[in-house]
Amino acid sequence: MAFRRRWPGGACGQTVRMAEHNLPVVRWQEPPDGPALILLDQTRLPAAEAELACRDVPALVAAIQRLVVRGAPLLGVVGAYGVALAAARGADVPEAAEQLAHARPTAVNLASGVRRAERAHRVAAEAGGGPEHAAAAALAAARELHEEDARASAAMAEHGRELLAKLRPGGLRILTHCNTGRLVSGGEGTAFAVVRAVHRTGELRRLWVDETRPLLQGARLTAYEAAREGMAYRVLTDNAAGSLFAVGEVDAVLIGADRIAADGSVANKVGSYPLAVLARHHGVPFVVVAPATTVDPGTADGAAIVVEQRPGHEVTESAAGVRTVPEGAEAYNPAFDVTPPELVTALVTERGVVSPVSRAGIAELCSMSRSGESRSGNGMMNS
Amino acid sequence: MAFRRRWPGGACGQTVRMAEHNLPVVRWQEPPDGPALILLDQTRLPAAEAELACRDVPALVAAIQRLVVRGAPLLGVVGAYGVALAAARGADVPEAAEQLAHARPTAVNLASGVRRAERAHRVAAEAGGGPEHAAAAALAAARELHEEDARASAAMAEHGRELLAKLRPGGLRILTHCNTGRLVSGGEGTAFAVVRAVHRTGELRRLWVDETRPLLQGARLTAYEAAREGMAYRVLTDNAAGSLFAVGEVDAVLIGADRIAADGSVANKVGSYPLAVLARHHGVPFVVVAPATTVDPGTADGAAIVVEQRPGHEVTESAAGVRTVPEGAEAYNPAFDVTPPELVTALVTERGVVSPVSRAGIAELCSMSRSGESRSGNGMMNS
Repeated sequence: MAFRRRWPGGACGQTVRMAEHNLPVVRWQEPPDGPALILLDQTRLPAAEAELACRDVPALVAAIQRLVVRGAPLLGVVGAYGVALAAARGADVPEAAEQLAHARPTAVNLASGVRRAERAHRVAAEAGGGPEHAAAAALAAARELHEEDARASAAMAEHGRELLAKLRPGGLRILTHCNTGRLVSGGEGTAFAVVRAVHRTGELRRLWVDETRPLLQGARLTAYEAAREGMAYRVLTDNAAGSLFAVGEVDAVLIGADRIAADGSVANKVGSYPLAVLARHHGVPFVVVAPATTVDPGTADGAAIVVEQRPGHEVTESAAGVRTVPEGAEAYNPAFDVTPPELVTALVTERGVVSPVSRAGIAELCSMSRSGESRSGNGMMNS
Repeated sequence: MAFRRRWPGGACGQTVRMAEHNLPVVRWQEPPDGPALILLDQTRLPAAEAELACRDVPALVAAIQRLVVRGAPLLGVVGAYGVALAAARGADVPEAAEQLAHARPTAVNLASGVRRAERAHRVAAEAGGGPEHAAAAALAAARELHEEDARASAAMAEHGRELLAKLRPGGLRILTHCNTGRLVSGGEGTAFAVVRAVHRTGELRRLWVDETRPLLQGARLTAYEAAREGMAYRVLTDNAAGSLFAVGEVDAVLIGADRIAADGSVANKVGSYPLAVLARHHGVPFVVVAPATTVDPGTADGAAIVVEQRPGHEVTESAAGVRTVPEGAEAYNPAFDVTPPELVTALVTERGVVSPVSRAGIAELCSMSRSGESRSGNGMMNS
């Protein structure tokens, strides 16, 4: 968390400005300063709010892998802008799209955002409008996805708030894991957007924030967002959540998702699955909040989800690079885990709520129009 | 984990020597250099092996609270030596015993070790042998406890190894939490002593080491002990254990205990209870290894166990003192959690194995002689 300032000096990420508050999480910069994609550097929060400029796709891929930018929905938006960046710079768009789509393996949104902008680019190019026209089409697709994501956040927040009011009337003590707010989305986020909606109606008694080892997205990022919203929150080590359940201090668990398989299995930040098992053991609702784009019908079930294995030093060294284990110690460091559908009380999407979560319910969600109309009543509550 | 050398300069803890390996965890120093209790400073492992000299009880209490020395059985031994130290220095022994017994609230062994040495001191004083005679009696009681603890470790190791051979024939992949080896005991430890016995018979396929936030006793201390034993081990974040269970990579969970209530509820390092719930969900044996002195018949049940709440900065700051959360963030930081007896597959003690763990089984354990003879067969397997 040490503060390091970087100076402009090449195509690769440079800090371009710093401010106290309210920097956008991602923004597009036009020429003459651009084309560039400007990211709020999440690795430096909460100690510093600084932006990082990515002027080409290799710089953006590196930023994605280094978790400068993260969170499934936001990765989709950033992936789409990445295609627009490649097109605006005259780079090989299909090659750039391949690099972007595979920058990280688990979040399905990244590849789908990339493909959407790539498709728009290809259609425009095939229509014969020239490279500038195709680049503009890719950028328009990215901006459209960005705006859709913001609208999806607002819809999820409202569906989730209504669901919780039904599941647990009265004030709520919510436990959350990792970070799912405006730092992961074109809008207000996923699970955290629901927490915010609950807070705004005065119904949030407490937000319990799992610190989320090894990279502390909860302690660093969710606490930062909760503090800015004026929520009553407390940070805890991930392993202390069991104590809260045991004494009845958790009314609901809310998490996001990185990929949802066709059977309803949910890949999310490592540590989500143990919370699902604890929630079931204690009869506490376990609610997943994610846009419908997080569902990948091409992933049949939980076993088919590829879980990213991250470098061991994330576990064995402090943020300052000090080793905390004996020399030679190796670490097991999966970035995600998979929660089977039977442990998920409900899936909240912008199109409505799926509960119970099952293959049929997921299929119905995928078959729905974006307006939230269900074609049948199978497992779908239009809340 | 920064290396800080301290120079002698008063009664309070001073680093007295450093060496590469094999410093005793606790040793008594006679005059002229003593009387003093010399502790291996566990806060500095694995980066440095250094000893800290405690020359009076306030220094020793501070060392206990700062976790220079920790682990339930070892705290009992250290508490007894603390009484001997007070007596040897001519301090007020009952007052010193009070301070020592309440230095930390959860481990029952601390107070019972203190009371044992205090009783020996009082009996000798009442017999009229003079202060030196009484001080020698306190020291003899501490040394006796120290030796008993070493013998108990050896017996637990053998009972535990036999139990695991029955529960899970063939090679074992064992998950453990916190630190339970020679750093917590007058001997080879509790759960880790069993792991070592399994390893020595060539049956240990893998030791999974929970890092054990917030103070990383697993990553720092258990990994250090596993490395010295040449075990195949890997460190993981506490929240990654769920992923191991899900893919069938855990054959047994072995932990220690800080206090066991009369109903068999087990207080141990925070994060133990979630492992018990996961183990039950996956049908994996969850085994507690602790000397019979860890049972407190005066604590009726789990709800009666006082769980130490530790300072929030242990969660919200790195070891180097760098804050990882936004300013003003508060933390929930219980040092222990409580696992109900129905989730404990077996309790391994030096007297034998209690399984199932129940009020009757615990009562029988307490009624046994130290030779391991059971008076009835109620819940007791003499393995």
